[in-house]
Amino acid sequence: MSVPMRDCHREITAWMEALGATVRVDAAGNLRGLYPEMKAGAPRLLLGSHLDTVPNAGAYDGILGVVLAVALLEELGGRKLPFGIEVVGFSEEEGVRFGVPFIGSRAVVGRLDEGLLMRKDARGISVRQAIQDFGMNPAEIPQAGLDDGTLGYLEFHIEQGPVLEKLGRPLGVVEAIAGQSRMEFRFVGRTNHAGTTPMDLRYDALAAAAEWITVVEREAQSVGGLVATVGSIEAEPGATNVIAGEVRASLDVRHREDAVRTRAVEDVTREAERIARARGLSVSWETRLSQDAVAMDAWLAGEIEQAVHKSGCEPQRMVSGAGHDAMILAEKVPAAMIFLRTPGGISHDPAESVAVEDVAKAIECGVHLLDQLASSAEFLKRTGRA
Amino acid sequence: MSVPMRDCHREITAWMEALGATVRVDAAGNLRGLYPEMKAGAPRLLLGSHLDTVPNAGAYDGILGVVLAVALLEELGGRKLPFGIEVVGFSEEEGVRFGVPFIGSRAVVGRLDEGLLMRKDARGISVRQAIQDFGMNPAEIPQAGLDDGTLGYLEFHIEQGPVLEKLGRPLGVVEAIAGQSRMEFRFVGRTNHAGTTPMDLRYDALAAAAEWITVVEREAQSVGGLVATVGSIEAEPGATNVIAGEVRASLDVRHREDAVRTRAVEDVTREAERIARARGLSVSWETRLSQDAVAMDAWLAGEIEQAVHKSGCEPQRMVSGAGHDAMILAEKVPAAMIFLRTPGGISHDPAESVAVEDVAKAIECGVHLLDQLASSAEFLKRTGRA
Repeated sequence: MSVPMRDCHREITAWMEALGATVRVDAAGNLRGLYPEMKAGAPRLLLGSHLDTVPNAGAYDGILGVVLAVALLEELGGRKLPFGIEVVGFSEEEGVRFGVPFIGSRAVVGRLDEGLLMRKDARGISVRQAIQDFGMNPAEIPQAGLDDGTLGYLEFHIEQGPVLEKLGRPLGVVEAIAGQSRMEFRFVGRTNHAGTTPMDLRYDALAAAAEWITVVEREAQSVGGLVATVGSIEAEPGATNVIAGEVRASLDVRHREDAVRTRAVEDVTREAERIARARGLSVSWETRLSQDAVAMDAWLAGEIEQAVHKSGCEPQRMVSGAGHDAMILAEKVPAAMIFLRTPGGISHDPAESVAVEDVAKAIECGVHLLDQLASSAEFLKRTGRA
Repeated sequence: MSVPMRDCHREITAWMEALGATVRVDAAGNLRGLYPEMKAGAPRLLLGSHLDTVPNAGAYDGILGVVLAVALLEELGGRKLPFGIEVVGFSEEEGVRFGVPFIGSRAVVGRLDEGLLMRKDARGISVRQAIQDFGMNPAEIPQAGLDDGTLGYLEFHIEQGPVLEKLGRPLGVVEAIAGQSRMEFRFVGRTNHAGTTPMDLRYDALAAAAEWITVVEREAQSVGGLVATVGSIEAEPGATNVIAGEVRASLDVRHREDAVRTRAVEDVTREAERIARARGLSVSWETRLSQDAVAMDAWLAGEIEQAVHKSGCEPQRMVSGAGHDAMILAEKVPAAMIFLRTPGGISHDPAESVAVEDVAKAIECGVHLLDQLASSAEFLKRTGRA
């Protein structure tokens, strides 16, 4: 909720107002532009993504989805639909400042509670204080909540992975957001002199951790759709001429099916124990995060698939390995996502990019999708207010 | 060259003077006590070890060898031998302060050169300055050099490893000090999102390094007497949810035969290349140290073996995996070492210990050894001055 964010809000507000939307910033710092429905009192469709990003980031993660939503309003050319369209630019999706992601979307589903408001950034400023400093009133957070007549949430986002590029497809239909487990493992052996300790008298924590990392990789390679990563490792004492007595290593496991993920976590944990025991070491672990998979709305996914087809592309059904605001919105309303091919799978990096042609296809797909939804009695019936 | 070192010098000086030795501190900070020979002008035997140690160390590494030398003078009970005995307490063996080990013993063999004197500690104080601050004159370093009539150098030292304990033998006869190679390897892959990058599209530098570490361990286990250690590892960016794009890992390889060590280094380097290539990564390496093995004097080792036998122990011929002052002295004079069993192999740790019985055996062995040398025409002829 910084000066650049204010500039960003001002710019997008101007675009949306020019297209006939009424724009406000809610008390959680989300930018919200309401493009009116054909007939007052009709339900609304949410369309958006997040406006924040990470340090040293690229230019597309998040904001592309908001710009695409505005582009779709522009494509309507003043035409009204049987539902209103609320464009949302969520705040604080990445969790960089307060260490907790999805602050903006949590407010929208009514989960920005007191605990979260007390959470402080590195300089000791709480979420509550940051909201006030941005000129907003934390007491008005309840008004950031979803309108009763919300039909659903649609989010365009770059894939941030290499799958669509690899397959040569510009657009992906997200079926689910993978569940994830994050853990920390600690192998404890014995620090010894690298020169005076024969190989058969060692209790080398790094050799044990290395063996385990190769097992984690093999396990993930053997199960379809499973990803498992050891991204962080620390060896103590960490000297060239000293056998490591302790190693801490992280584990990140994701899969669309919670049972598969849970089984994989059990497998690699058992393997860690087996490796440690065989070497006379001990191993312990802590679970830092265990988050279930979230299904996207199947009906909306089907509609997206049709719309992708109509725009001349082969749709790719896929699972998102990363979390997104859509995951939070799905708690309350039917939610769906469309991924855009990400060159090199590169994201969270200044080299992050997206092809102009792919963005054009996304807009074309979005227009088809809005038309499909506007003409679907089934969709408009969903909130019971259409 | 600190206050505790001055106290240490004062204490040992008092012991040696009481035994009839003439004590000085040379310009490199080595404490040197000369116990006179039977007949003036006879050659001398050097007996000692180092007086410095590492931070958070035990009480025996180094200093035990100096104390044992003094104990042997005491055992002589005033008796003179056909050679003088110079007890040396070397300074700066560990290399903690200036990052360069063996400063004291280098001075004794004439290798404390200008480059080394200019070397600075963490506070910017040079070796030269530290010598002056200790009240000594760097210009007098040449006088620290070996006397022409030096017969050899004997060093008692704790093993700092688990071998003697494992074999149930109190004393070891060091045949050689292993050569060592120290290297740093750098695996470069590609940083990617741990959730959105399928297993088959990864260039995981940590998975590659882990595979290599297991290969390094296997290689060392397959070659007799070889030790190879990866003790230090760093993964970048080092986050739980990010695939590591770069890993730096150290390598320490030691063996008594330089050809075996060199071949092992070539093998694991080739393996690093093979692993990196198979995964689409690159790998590079730098050699930080390549130090040849140093043989101890075979004749002296044979005499030590006999003396160990005479003291009622089974001698264990062995290779020192760690460097010692004896390695430096061997450049100029016949050098030999006797290892004392080290409980648990624990060293450079407050838990470092040695059994009183083993120290008694070491003294008994030392007395036999001095008697053997005193009665060996062969030994006394070695410098051509006896």
